[in-house]
Amino acid sequence: MKVEFEQYFKQLLGEENVYFDEAHRRVYSYDATKKHYLPDGVLFPRDEEDISKILKFCNDKGIIIIPRGAGSGFSGGALAVNGGLVLAFEKHMNKILEIDLGNLVAVVQPGVINMHLQKEVTKYGLFYPPDPASMEHSSLGGNVSENAGGMRATKYGITKDYVMALRAVLPNGEIISAGKRTIKDVAGYNLAGILIASEGSLAVFSELTLKLIALPKFKKTAMGVFPSVKSAMNAVFKTLASGVTPVSMEFLDNLSICAVENKFNIGLPKDAGAILIVEVDGNIQEVIDEDLKTIKHYFLEENASEFKIAKDEKEAKDIWFARKSCSQSITVYGSLKLNEDITVPRSKLPDLLEGIAEISKKYGFKIPCFGHTGDGNVHTNIMIEDKNDQEQVKKGHLAVEEVFKLTIKLGGTLSGEHGIGISKASFMNLAFSDAEMNLMRNIKKAFDPNNILNPFKMGL
Amino acid sequence: MKVEFEQYFKQLLGEENVYFDEAHRRVYSYDATKKHYLPDGVLFPRDEEDISKILKFCNDKGIIIIPRGAGSGFSGGALAVNGGLVLAFEKHMNKILEIDLGNLVAVVQPGVINMHLQKEVTKYGLFYPPDPASMEHSSLGGNVSENAGGMRATKYGITKDYVMALRAVLPNGEIISAGKRTIKDVAGYNLAGILIASEGSLAVFSELTLKLIALPKFKKTAMGVFPSVKSAMNAVFKTLASGVTPVSMEFLDNLSICAVENKFNIGLPKDAGAILIVEVDGNIQEVIDEDLKTIKHYFLEENASEFKIAKDEKEAKDIWFARKSCSQSITVYGSLKLNEDITVPRSKLPDLLEGIAEISKKYGFKIPCFGHTGDGNVHTNIMIEDKNDQEQVKKGHLAVEEVFKLTIKLGGTLSGEHGIGISKASFMNLAFSDAEMNLMRNIKKAFDPNNILNPFKMGL
Repeated sequence: MKVEFEQYFKQLLGEENVYFDEAHRRVYSYDATKKHYLPDGVLFPRDEEDISKILKFCNDKGIIIIPRGAGSGFSGGALAVNGGLVLAFEKHMNKILEIDLGNLVAVVQPGVINMHLQKEVTKYGLFYPPDPASMEHSSLGGNVSENAGGMRATKYGITKDYVMALRAVLPNGEIISAGKRTIKDVAGYNLAGILIASEGSLAVFSELTLKLIALPKFKKTAMGVFPSVKSAMNAVFKTLASGVTPVSMEFLDNLSICAVENKFNIGLPKDAGAILIVEVDGNIQEVIDEDLKTIKHYFLEENASEFKIAKDEKEAKDIWFARKSCSQSITVYGSLKLNEDITVPRSKLPDLLEGIAEISKKYGFKIPCFGHTGDGNVHTNIMIEDKNDQEQVKKGHLAVEEVFKLTIKLGGTLSGEHGIGISKASFMNLAFSDAEMNLMRNIKKAFDPNNILNPFKMGL
Repeated sequence: MKVEFEQYFKQLLGEENVYFDEAHRRVYSYDATKKHYLPDGVLFPRDEEDISKILKFCNDKGIIIIPRGAGSGFSGGALAVNGGLVLAFEKHMNKILEIDLGNLVAVVQPGVINMHLQKEVTKYGLFYPPDPASMEHSSLGGNVSENAGGMRATKYGITKDYVMALRAVLPNGEIISAGKRTIKDVAGYNLAGILIASEGSLAVFSELTLKLIALPKFKKTAMGVFPSVKSAMNAVFKTLASGVTPVSMEFLDNLSICAVENKFNIGLPKDAGAILIVEVDGNIQEVIDEDLKTIKHYFLEENASEFKIAKDEKEAKDIWFARKSCSQSITVYGSLKLNEDITVPRSKLPDLLEGIAEISKKYGFKIPCFGHTGDGNVHTNIMIEDKNDQEQVKKGHLAVEEVFKLTIKLGGTLSGEHGIGISKASFMNLAFSDAEMNLMRNIKKAFDPNNILNPFKMGL
């Protein structure tokens, strides 16, 4: 990048907020995909005005901008695949600006860490439900850009259900606001609607207004052990059809159970077909107990050999430990994990898991599956024994493609919560028609005619 | 319109689905605004393919298309303000295609009447919450196009919260699908998000996939009588902050109360400052009773002189009668009603209502207000005694503008549930910056470069 650009930004933002040196570029070249691409520099805007001036300048000069949250994304959304300047918010734009108790909203800057907001609103007896697995380090700007999901989606929905309004800067430097602190707002196009999940490719968020709800007073965790995946799925369907909506209904298949047990020795039944972990919450203890009774009824009806309700927080934590250790434990099956966050309509979960078992057999890979049964979101992990065996890796990617094809055939989506980025860009044509892809390109152009904002992502 | 066009459409759709005669054009020239504009003709597509062929032809020839639901809109969205062809769905595309019990979704054609779906899903113990006042005759296609609200928004949200997926036809005839039967889907741009509330100006819906929830087993209605609007609002705030979320919290101000009482003589207290009507629902009777106890506590704390819980469905209906009769009753104050559906952040309701009282004094108009306190959505009605008094009508419109300015100042929106259409198009510049208006125009162009779909609406 030209020296004059560096000088311009240093004058604009101050020396301490502009880095074109190798060390900084390297630090901002990674994300959770473990791929890396060196950006040309890193900028730390102090406020919305800074973002506006940076974008206007870059738009005029044709300089690529990559907005970056915490770099915890699994799809490469924050990677500078073709150079350009990373816009990082963690240094200055990381403040909770307001917690509005009258309207139950929080106003935050994009760099605020999800967990930071969670903790803060708890002080007021309030609750921000979206809880991506990365919540201890991922930023809310990144969460909104990827429309992050999480464990609580069955009952509480996902990030988009909590974005009431936002401020954003267009590539030409113009500042817009979209939405209000109101449930109802139907004036003009739903600009916030199209910006959510746009992976930083349409505008740069400068402020987010997020919906809060009252913190449920009680919650309980329980676990059921099933002879097969199918019986576990049936238990899920029966529970949800009864009108009981747990916060989470998480499942582990046999491979996941064995992996966790082998690694941590916590007493999981290695002969079980599946485990379901449910959490229920509410304001009245008796209702929760009633819900658990209903759940137990359907679990036993589906031949659960065990139904355990956590007596206290420690027991609840122990139960959750099994689920939360899946991702790290399954590495016993191989040194390379091709993990995808596919999602199908809930009723198609048994078909999906059967299909994956067939793909596993066909390719000879172990494919442990775990995830969010309540919302059809399954983390499938194709395990390659030796990551240096190029033949196996190639075969693994073919297996991934089959998993995607199966998912689409079942009415599902390439990504439930991670986004497309670069990881799944080449599969977009499996899921979208030419007309749909062209429409997305036209929308991209409507916001970003010079294509400076996070280009070369999402297959656009 | 040229005769050759009529012939083309008759060949395409059959004689019985194409009308260019005066009588049909007249029938399709109105909507709930009572304004009328003659379209050039009316087409009744039989299916998605018909829509596609019609749009492709019209796009090539530059013929305007106005998609029309039931014509029950309050903002003129379905009016042919500059001629063109009305696309009407009530004849053929009015079917519920599927009720998917496994995934709790309904798949419908755009012409299905809201109430028709409500009744159908009740048979399965399910619930489609969005309930615009027009629900007995408005269509779901129209509801989604305007992002219709209703009485249940406080607890259940609005139309956009129930659109999971849709199929739509672009102006060039291409058919797209957006969204899935899954809570989580983050592949590609949120196309459904931008199509909701787009007032028929971006694409024509051919199929809608709507989220259903379990029908709550019990509900109860109650009414509180307050000395002032302010005390009623405080009671609302305290209730919601306590974690109790009623389905509805509807209010009537003194003018509305008096109008209903004068017309129907049902025993409402004409000296009351405000009345609040609340509905709570749930699956456990005891929880509802507990909620009502909490509500009563805060109502009495705010000096409610009366708190009445309906003992049965008849009493509940009687209570609701007061609220549902407001719109027709307030005509005692004048022969012309300038009614707006402004919405402010809930906490700003007292400021809004105070400001409206001042505007009422300044202009000498009675302005009865009633509406959805729980979500900040107030129906303000500027009453002109004599609709033929041009001077008064002109003054009335100035008063409307002041109401809008006040609303915007308080962080509110021009429209909570009716949309912009032509009714509020001239006020868009009060609410949106040039940058925002330009962005909306660019989005319109991205979908509809020839500007054939419902043009001249929303101030675009």
